[in-house]
Amino acid sequence: MGFRESLEEVCGVEGAVAASVMGFDGIAVDTVMPAKTDVDLEALLVEYAGILGQVKQAAEVLQTGKVSELSIGTDRITTLLRPINPEYFLLLAMRPEGNFGKGRYLLRVTAPKLQNEF
Amino acid sequence: MGFRESLEEVCGVEGAVAASVMGFDGIAVDTVMPAKTDVDLEALLVEYAGILGQVKQAAEVLQTGKVSELSIGTDRITTLLRPINPEYFLLLAMRPEGNFGKGRYLLRVTAPKLQNEF
Repeated sequence: MGFRESLEEVCGVEGAVAASVMGFDGIAVDTVMPAKTDVDLEALLVEYAGILGQVKQAAEVLQTGKVSELSIGTDRITTLLRPINPEYFLLLAMRPEGNFGKGRYLLRVTAPKLQNEF
Repeated sequence: MGFRESLEEVCGVEGAVAASVMGFDGIAVDTVMPAKTDVDLEALLVEYAGILGQVKQAAEVLQTGKVSELSIGTDRITTLLRPINPEYFLLLAMRPEGNFGKGRYLLRVTAPKLQNEF
C-alpha cells in the first residue's frame, strides 16, 4: 500500500481535515485534504514539523528514548503526529470534535506500515 | 482546593510519576512526584515548558485559537500539558503504560478549577 492509500485510510476518522507524510525539514512527501477548513494547513504542517523536531531534540537531551507521538490541541484544530523513521513522520489534522482516540489508533497502526515505503 | 490537593488528585491516575503547576517561564509553582523514575523530571519540566511556549506561539501565528492541550509520548515517559491561563499550565508525567485517557480527562477537569487559585 502506498502513501496515498494510507493517508486516505487515516482520513477515515470522523472530523479529519488533512493527513500528510512529511520530512522533519517541513517538506511534505504527500498530503490529502478530505475536508475544507479555514485553517492555513500548509503553514500548520511546516510549523508543526519544526515543533516535532524540537520534541525529538528534547528527548535526546533528556534521554527519554524515541518520540512515539505528539498531539497538539487548539480551539480550531487538533493535530496528531507520529514519527515513521528518523527523517519522516505521519500527521493527522482534525476538527476538535473529531474522534481523537480513533485518530491516535490509526496513526499507531499506519506509521509502522509506511516504514517499508522508504 | 489548593494546588497540592489538585496535583495529588491528578496523580491518582495509574502510572503517574509527576504532576506540576508551572509557569511558561519554566519555573514550577508546585510539583508532586508520587513514584520513582530514572527520568530527569526537573529537566523535563523545563524543556517541556519551552515546547508548550512554542506551541502557543505557533497557534498565534496560525490563528488556530487558544492551545487546549499538548501531549508528548516517548519510549520512557508520556507527558500531558494543559494551559491554566496565559501564564501557567498543568503538567502530568506518567509511565508509557499509564492510563492516557484518564490522565487527559483529569487535566481537562482540573485545569479550569485551578484558574481560581491565581
